Amino acid sequence: MRECTRVHFTCRRRISIASRQEVAKLAGVSEATVSRVLNNVGPLKEETKERVLAAARQLGYTPSSLARSFARQRSGNLGVVMPYLPKARLFSAYYFSEILSGIGSKAREEGNDLLMLFRDPAEVMDYSGLFRMRKIDACIVLGAKEDPAEVAALRNLKEEGHSFCLINQHFEGEDFPEVDADHIDGSYQAVIHLLEQGFRKIAFLNGPEVYSNSRDRLTGYTRALAAKGLLPEPSLQFRGNFSRTSGLAAAREVVANLGQIDAVFAANDRMAIGLQQGLRELGIPGAQMPAIIGYDDSEAAELTTPSLSSVRVPFFKLGELAAFKVLEMTAVRDTETSSRATRIQLPTELIVRASSTFMIPKED
Amino acid sequence: MRECTRVHFTCRRRISIASRQEVAKLAGVSEATVSRVLNNVGPLKEETKERVLAAARQLGYTPSSLARSFARQRSGNLGVVMPYLPKARLFSAYYFSEILSGIGSKAREEGNDLLMLFRDPAEVMDYSGLFRMRKIDACIVLGAKEDPAEVAALRNLKEEGHSFCLINQHFEGEDFPEVDADHIDGSYQAVIHLLEQGFRKIAFLNGPEVYSNSRDRLTGYTRALAAKGLLPEPSLQFRGNFSRTSGLAAAREVVANLGQIDAVFAANDRMAIGLQQGLRELGIPGAQMPAIIGYDDSEAAELTTPSLSSVRVPFFKLGELAAFKVLEMTAVRDTETSSRATRIQLPTELIVRASSTFMIPKED
Repeated sequence: MRECTRVHFTCRRRISIASRQEVAKLAGVSEATVSRVLNNVGPLKEETKERVLAAARQLGYTPSSLARSFARQRSGNLGVVMPYLPKARLFSAYYFSEILSGIGSKAREEGNDLLMLFRDPAEVMDYSGLFRMRKIDACIVLGAKEDPAEVAALRNLKEEGHSFCLINQHFEGEDFPEVDADHIDGSYQAVIHLLEQGFRKIAFLNGPEVYSNSRDRLTGYTRALAAKGLLPEPSLQFRGNFSRTSGLAAAREVVANLGQIDAVFAANDRMAIGLQQGLRELGIPGAQMPAIIGYDDSEAAELTTPSLSSVRVPFFKLGELAAFKVLEMTAVRDTETSSRATRIQLPTELIVRASSTFMIPKED
Repeated sequence: MRECTRVHFTCRRRISIASRQEVAKLAGVSEATVSRVLNNVGPLKEETKERVLAAARQLGYTPSSLARSFARQRSGNLGVVMPYLPKARLFSAYYFSEILSGIGSKAREEGNDLLMLFRDPAEVMDYSGLFRMRKIDACIVLGAKEDPAEVAALRNLKEEGHSFCLINQHFEGEDFPEVDADHIDGSYQAVIHLLEQGFRKIAFLNGPEVYSNSRDRLTGYTRALAAKGLLPEPSLQFRGNFSRTSGLAAAREVVANLGQIDAVFAANDRMAIGLQQGLRELGIPGAQMPAIIGYDDSEAAELTTPSLSSVRVPFFKLGELAAFKVLEMTAVRDTETSSRATRIQLPTELIVRASSTFMIPKED
């Protein structure tokens, strides 16, 4: 059915494309030979080569996926906007790697290439310009922040009717297409689990407040405490920036308050692993170690000692879904788009390991 | 100095670009206002907006980085060709993540975007077509294989004078621009270390032979054994595909030969970690565990138990260097390029941890 909307779109442009078959016929060779000549593969007679190239030129033939984009006046590129931090190895963070793999997988299936666009944190992104210049046909925005200039740029994209989608960031009151995970529930599950293990003094190491998913985690943390009649203690709320280094730094604050803390909920695995490492380096013995839960359920969570309990987020799926959504919007862009500007939210899942139970974990 | 060649290139096209200053002057507003209008940021009077847009249209103004690419008849895109395997999460593998981060970092510095191109293993890549259609200005090829069609496609790229570079793959007898690490020496160091620990029965879990870096590892392994007067034992050479699953599978073969094996050199960390896991799952007690060395020194190597000795490869640097190389080639493409078709090889470094020493590792 999707194929159908695509054909429709192509027809609308009324550009016909010579097929490989027609080139083969004109040159008097097989289609396989046409391919071999155009890809310059294998031993070929100079004369055959020239005949095929002349036929391709005459018919204006180019290999099909490129030709299709060209005929449709499309770039064939799906833009992915990522925050750029000098020296940060963005692709190495589990979060970005998984989302990008999901986007890439769906884009590839649909015959699109990914254009990675690095946003300078100090600069407003000219999203619309990227569409105007036909660098991209659709766009997925990662790591967007609550910031007036960002909101304005996104509103502009929406007004101009471009296909775009946010991942893991919600703008309250805006009706932007968004694909997100349920971080309120994920955080709630994590903290309820700690409470059920008997922990009462639960510290919280959160990420920056400009991200809606940090605010969602705070809501989940607060609700879980409230469910047991507890109030969040401001002096036990620490702030990191999702890096392992910021988890290492938080270890000092946790140690300074160790009498008040018997468990820590960290907003991602990197900070949780940094915290584990920092507490060890500060000489905290195993028996005094607080329980720790991370978030993301990255590959590293299984490998640490003790293995890290964590909240699993379907990042790959988020990426796939966002790509599917924007490519579909692109294909049917003639029809009303505002109705599709909905928010999709996928469930999260608590994975319990040794770090929050103090028992030898079962292999999962 | 690079700036100089770029200016030269721009001049050659003789296309003048209206500046933001000129738009501001014509519209009778400040440059900041021009930016705000074009980015649609902040509260703006409708009349101001229209005046700026009219001036921009009249002068043919577009924001600068896009305009520069356009005027140069460049896409501003650096292509990165990666193997595509359905369901494989390419970005998650340390190897690809680090290389891509390095490429992305350099590309960003130079004002280029990354275009990710997924190669279908069953299809020949039309590299030249990507240049012809101006999808990319330069191209970096990852995961290329020893394969006649691949070689032919790359030769074609070279003949047409395009800027390209291979990472971590060497084609003997071809003079392709390549950035690689010294895997012969890395493997030699790893195996010599095992020999120096007193191990003599050293098995080898290698990757697929179509990659030159697998063949380099075999050479290093063989040379190290020869340095101690030993010959490689064919029955102790196992083959994986660089995945953790293939390491898990190799555990069964290692167990079947456990009397003949006291150490294993694995061609990457993922296989080494899979092997550790597999041996544990097959019930091999710690005392009978062979020494294990991995390769890549991924983030996970520090986190396993025992922590994994490994050969550190400067992947980020490889990516940066390859990007620098192709972007420089693009900038000076008028001059002779063949002299720059050289092979760069960076050193590797052995990182010793507990898995190959059976002692509590020192923190490094």
